[in-house]
Amino acid sequence: MSILSSELGPHGDIVMSSRVRFARNLAPYDFPQRITIEGAKEVSQLVKKTLEKNDSDYKNTFHTIRMKKTDEIERQLYVEEHMISPALAQNTEKGELLINKQKGCSLMLHEEDHIRIQCLRKGLQPMEAFLEADRIDDWLGKHLPYAYDERLGYLTACPTNIGSGLRVSVMLHLPALTMMGYLEDLIRAAGQLGFTVRGVFGEGSGYLGNLYQISNQVTLNVKEQEIVTNIEDIAGKVIDRERAVRKSVLCDQKLELEDRVFRSLGILKYAQLIKRKEAMHLISDVILGTSLGVISAYSLSDLHKLMAQIQPAYLQKQSGTILTEKEREQKRAAFIRETLK
Amino acid sequence: MSILSSELGPHGDIVMSSRVRFARNLAPYDFPQRITIEGAKEVSQLVKKTLEKNDSDYKNTFHTIRMKKTDEIERQLYVEEHMISPALAQNTEKGELLINKQKGCSLMLHEEDHIRIQCLRKGLQPMEAFLEADRIDDWLGKHLPYAYDERLGYLTACPTNIGSGLRVSVMLHLPALTMMGYLEDLIRAAGQLGFTVRGVFGEGSGYLGNLYQISNQVTLNVKEQEIVTNIEDIAGKVIDRERAVRKSVLCDQKLELEDRVFRSLGILKYAQLIKRKEAMHLISDVILGTSLGVISAYSLSDLHKLMAQIQPAYLQKQSGTILTEKEREQKRAAFIRETLK
Repeated sequence: MSILSSELGPHGDIVMSSRVRFARNLAPYDFPQRITIEGAKEVSQLVKKTLEKNDSDYKNTFHTIRMKKTDEIERQLYVEEHMISPALAQNTEKGELLINKQKGCSLMLHEEDHIRIQCLRKGLQPMEAFLEADRIDDWLGKHLPYAYDERLGYLTACPTNIGSGLRVSVMLHLPALTMMGYLEDLIRAAGQLGFTVRGVFGEGSGYLGNLYQISNQVTLNVKEQEIVTNIEDIAGKVIDRERAVRKSVLCDQKLELEDRVFRSLGILKYAQLIKRKEAMHLISDVILGTSLGVISAYSLSDLHKLMAQIQPAYLQKQSGTILTEKEREQKRAAFIRETLK
Repeated sequence: MSILSSELGPHGDIVMSSRVRFARNLAPYDFPQRITIEGAKEVSQLVKKTLEKNDSDYKNTFHTIRMKKTDEIERQLYVEEHMISPALAQNTEKGELLINKQKGCSLMLHEEDHIRIQCLRKGLQPMEAFLEADRIDDWLGKHLPYAYDERLGYLTACPTNIGSGLRVSVMLHLPALTMMGYLEDLIRAAGQLGFTVRGVFGEGSGYLGNLYQISNQVTLNVKEQEIVTNIEDIAGKVIDRERAVRKSVLCDQKLELEDRVFRSLGILKYAQLIKRKEAMHLISDVILGTSLGVISAYSLSDLHKLMAQIQPAYLQKQSGTILTEKEREQKRAAFIRETLK
C-alpha cells in the first residue's frame, strides 16, 4: 500500500495516512551507533532469516534494498515517501530497507535502532496499521533475542523510545483550522495530552501544505493499544473540529473561500516556475475546495498524490537526473499544469 | 473615437492614447468660480450657437450632456473615460459636456475655465489630436470674444494655463521600465525638460496598471506646435526605451517573465473577487506578455479595453445600479473571467 495509491482511506478528506513503528534491538549487539560492520551484517542476516523461515507468513514477501546500492536521488525518494528516515538515508554503509508492499509494511535496519518495524495505512486506520506491525513484531520477537528489560520494557538507542518502542502517528490536512488561526491552540493542547504535532514534508520545513502529523510522545508505562486508541481519539476530535470550521467558513465566507481556492487553482494551472512550499500551499487550497465541493474537476486522492509528486526527489527521479533548483521549479510547474489540465 | 474602440493606434503596443486640450475663456464674463448662473447660461448659449452656425463644420455634430441631468454613475463613467474631469463632475449646476464622437472631440463648459476643448486619438498621435482641437478653437475664436492678452496670450482661471492654454499628453503603458525600476529616473528627467508624469486612472491612485501620462507643464511663451513636437519627441524616446527593456527582459529572464505573465493570467481567469488595483496590475502583465508574443490568446486592444471596463463606474453602469465594494469586486472578477475565457 503506497501513499501514491489512488484510494482514499477512512476520513480521507482530512486524514492522509496513519503510521505505526516499533523500535527494536537485539540484546547481544551494540546499538547501531557503536556496532561494527560485521555485527550489523549479523543482525541483518538474523532478521532476514527469521522472515524467510519455512513456517513464516513473511517468506518471500519482503524485498531488500541496501542503502549502499542506491543513489542519492533514490534515497531521497524513499525519504519523501516516508519509507525511510533521513537518518537511514545517511547510513549508506550499513542501512537496509526491507519492503513488503502488499502489506504496506517495511523494516529499516540500522537506523537509530537495529530494527524499525513500520506500517502505513491510508486515512484514519492507526489500529489496522498497529495490528499489522504487531504481527511482524511478534514473529521477530519469537525468534530473536530482543533487548528487553522486565521493568522498563523494550530497550532502545534513544531513551525517548524505551518501553513500548511504539510510535503511532496520523497525518492530517488541516487547512481550515490553519486559516482560522486555531492551530496553535491545538498544538498546545496536544502537547499537554502527551502528543506532538509536526510538519510532514522535509526537515525544518514547517507545516508545508497545511499537513500536520500528530504522534505520541510517551512510550514508557503506556499499553501499546492504549497509545493507538489515544491517537484515534485525539485525531477524531481534530477531524470533527476541522470539518466544522470548513463548513462554517463555507457558510460565512463563501465568496472569499471560493476566491481563494480558485485563485490557487489558477496559479497552479498557469505558473511556469514554482517552489515546493508555494505549490504545497496552493494544492492544499485546491484540496480544501475539492473537499467542500467548490472545485469539482479533480479527485482528492489525485491531489494528495500530487503533493507527493512535486517533492524534489520524485521530480528528479522522473527526470532521471539531478536538477538545479530552477530546473526543479520548472519541472514542478510543468508537472502540475499537466496534472491539472 | 472612443477609448473603447477596437483598433490600436500608432505604437499601440505601448501608447494607449494621445490627448490635447485648450483652455479658453470669454472676456466679458467672470471666470467659472465667480460666474453667475445667468452668466454661465449665456456662455453656454454663445458656444453652442457658434458651433451650430449655418456655415459651421460642426453643425449638428455635437451632442450636449448637462451635468444636472446625469446621475452619479454616469458622471463617474465620463470621468473614467476621460471625457470629463472630476471637477466638472462636481459642477452639477452649470457644467456641460458637448461630445463629437466622430471626431473624438469634446467640449467641457464651466469646468475650471469657460471652455475646455479636448481631442483624443488612439496611440501616438498628439499632432493629429492637436490639429483637430485647433480647428475647433479657430472656429470658436473667430466668433467669440476670447479672453486674450497681447503679451501673455490666452487668459485662464489658473495661472499655470496662461499662454497657449494648451495641454498635450500621451498615455503610456510601461510595464518593463517599471519592473526594472527605471521609472523614477524617467520621471525626474521629464520634470527637468518641463514635463509631468502622472498616473492615469483615479485621483491619488498612483500608477495603476503601469499606465503613465506624460504632459507638458509649461504653456507660457512656448509655441503651440512646439509643445506637441516636444511631447512627440520625449514619448518617442520613452517608447524606444520601454521596447528595448522588454526585449532584454525576454532575452535574459525569459522563464521568469513567462512565469509572471502566465500567473497573472491564471489569477485573472480564476479569481472570484478582485480589487481594481490588483486587476490593473495583472492585466498590465497580460498586456506585456501579449505584446511580447508570450501570450497569444488575446488582442492588445481588447486588453486595453478591459482596463477601462473594470473601473468602478463602468461596472456599475453595466449592472444598472450602485454596487458595494464587495459587489464591485465580484462583478469585476466575473467580467474578467468572461472576457478572458
